[in-house]
Amino acid sequence: MQTRAERLIGNADGMDAIVIMNDGEPFLDSTFWYLCEQPGGVFESSFAVVRGDGTLDVIVNPLEEESAKDGVGNIHVYHTAKEREDLLKESLKGCSKVGFNTHSSTYAMVSYVKRIVEGIEPVDAGRAIDLTVSVKDEKEIEATRKACRISSTVAKELPDYLSEGVSEKEIAARMDNRMRELGGTGNAFDTIAAFGPYSAQPHHMPCDYRLKKGDTALFDFGTKYDRYCSDMTRTVFLGEPPDILKRAYEVVKEAQLAGIAEYRDGANAKDADLAARKIIDDTEFKGMFIHSFGHGIGMDVHQAISVSSRSEQVLRAGNIVSAEPGIYIPGVGGIRIEDTVLVTKNGCEILTDFDHSFTVV
Amino acid sequence: MQTRAERLIGNADGMDAIVIMNDGEPFLDSTFWYLCEQPGGVFESSFAVVRGDGTLDVIVNPLEEESAKDGVGNIHVYHTAKEREDLLKESLKGCSKVGFNTHSSTYAMVSYVKRIVEGIEPVDAGRAIDLTVSVKDEKEIEATRKACRISSTVAKELPDYLSEGVSEKEIAARMDNRMRELGGTGNAFDTIAAFGPYSAQPHHMPCDYRLKKGDTALFDFGTKYDRYCSDMTRTVFLGEPPDILKRAYEVVKEAQLAGIAEYRDGANAKDADLAARKIIDDTEFKGMFIHSFGHGIGMDVHQAISVSSRSEQVLRAGNIVSAEPGIYIPGVGGIRIEDTVLVTKNGCEILTDFDHSFTVV
Repeated sequence: MQTRAERLIGNADGMDAIVIMNDGEPFLDSTFWYLCEQPGGVFESSFAVVRGDGTLDVIVNPLEEESAKDGVGNIHVYHTAKEREDLLKESLKGCSKVGFNTHSSTYAMVSYVKRIVEGIEPVDAGRAIDLTVSVKDEKEIEATRKACRISSTVAKELPDYLSEGVSEKEIAARMDNRMRELGGTGNAFDTIAAFGPYSAQPHHMPCDYRLKKGDTALFDFGTKYDRYCSDMTRTVFLGEPPDILKRAYEVVKEAQLAGIAEYRDGANAKDADLAARKIIDDTEFKGMFIHSFGHGIGMDVHQAISVSSRSEQVLRAGNIVSAEPGIYIPGVGGIRIEDTVLVTKNGCEILTDFDHSFTVV
Repeated sequence: MQTRAERLIGNADGMDAIVIMNDGEPFLDSTFWYLCEQPGGVFESSFAVVRGDGTLDVIVNPLEEESAKDGVGNIHVYHTAKEREDLLKESLKGCSKVGFNTHSSTYAMVSYVKRIVEGIEPVDAGRAIDLTVSVKDEKEIEATRKACRISSTVAKELPDYLSEGVSEKEIAARMDNRMRELGGTGNAFDTIAAFGPYSAQPHHMPCDYRLKKGDTALFDFGTKYDRYCSDMTRTVFLGEPPDILKRAYEVVKEAQLAGIAEYRDGANAKDADLAARKIIDDTEFKGMFIHSFGHGIGMDVHQAISVSSRSEQVLRAGNIVSAEPGIYIPGVGGIRIEDTVLVTKNGCEILTDFDHSFTVV
């Protein structure tokens, strides 16, 4: 079986090497952990070099020497700037076309490698990396399943957390605590708990607003398990909402099913977005689905795949993607329903689980 | 009083503008929130442009339109790639020398701006940004105080959490939950709980290892409050540890005090590191303090200031820095003691609070 490094360089047409780099936190590239299979460590100012023959050099600062030993690859520890330069030069010796992860490496770090290693031609390795990390192996799928199981439990419990006067912040904290209690190793992203008019802001940060009768209560959340993320959104209501929100809920639900029906190996990613968008745009909510239908999920909660109407990507078995249509009515409220979905040979498997029907608490 | 944007450009010798950018999560630059003073939002693919006259343009995607209104600056919303390009060109019109935050912007984003805005000379604005964000205003200090108060409460409770057989993961989850319960808005970084030999790894990630009699128990953790971080480390023991660890504890404690004694407005940052290092290197633990004494703390837990033996920075009143010497004995255990410290005119104020004496549970 191929190693992850071998798969990556196999996808990297004509590149002699690919350099994955971490700057200071939070400017760390999850591809580093993907390749090196370290369970932990921070690995600031560290490098993973994949060469044409599939070998992997891992160049780390002394702080990470112990952590590095838990992973794979040839570990090299530098103690000075000079040692770091020499290790990089040695690792990239004879390489001409060198790939970088340009959307996940800082300008300073790429410029540094370009400066110290003479004669290299830098190219964007983003596509090769996306192709590689987006097709999950069994170990990755299993970790994602566990993350999804944990957040699904919380999604099912959510109605029990709600009562008049509870604040967004209080519920978000309770959800995060519960995910940890259930074995999650930390949030996949900052939990969104958005009540009433705030639910019309797709990225609202929980505030002190307190839940009122008739309010929408939207929760977008996920956990990590062994570094892999889950991502899901459930929207419920405290007491009967205005009719317009009830109608919006049913439309979003139908749109999600229409999109998910397009998920299968070999399908165009954009077809899922277009199918869902058509459902919404054929109603009075035309134009109110203001983001794309989905994105890849992995060690990063937004990873490699764009399920938008303009995407030119093709889905592959082993992809893990979100399915999250929404309708946002400024000043009134928003509805979003989201699952984490595994693309399979003949269709897909929904990894998250909760009651998708219109729910009044 | 100067706005934050005005202070920044005032520190940016000869630059016509500074462009702060976010790529996709987690490649977001906290300087964006510093300048725009948004309480929330994710602001992927968004830009903050500070021009020579101190005006601030905030260029955001439609998803963030509502969130953007909670902050300052002239908000511009783009709906297409073309609109985004036009807004950037307009904002940078007539600018020649343009600063970028090269360690906090991706290579792809800086390259994009260089490509679409003709004739600009890109320069590194890192130093100007560090100078600006490292001197905290009252609002920032107050948020940090609150974050420190929350994590200090947990530090004091820590001995009560410990008993034989409890795992690192269990304690880390309990600490995180407790910080949220006390009003924290999320971890400042992944909590380190490291027992026994694992405490010799400065960046160990909590695992299923269970606490044994004689083990070191090291906890490095912090919370966010209003986006600002606390950072602290407490090391305790379950039952009497080997003598070598007891001695190491006393040396680290003395080294921390020696370092903190150097913190004051106008001091060389490196003096604190050198003072602490001398204490350790004069003992049998010579060479076992394998990281630097401290770093700046702000919206990022590692920000702007390096308190290392090679630092050429000068401390200023309003700086918030860590003080965290350590001794790491491979296979045996590690000791670290860390506080979050505010530099003042005549010395400093320690913002975190817990019992620093050798503690056996």
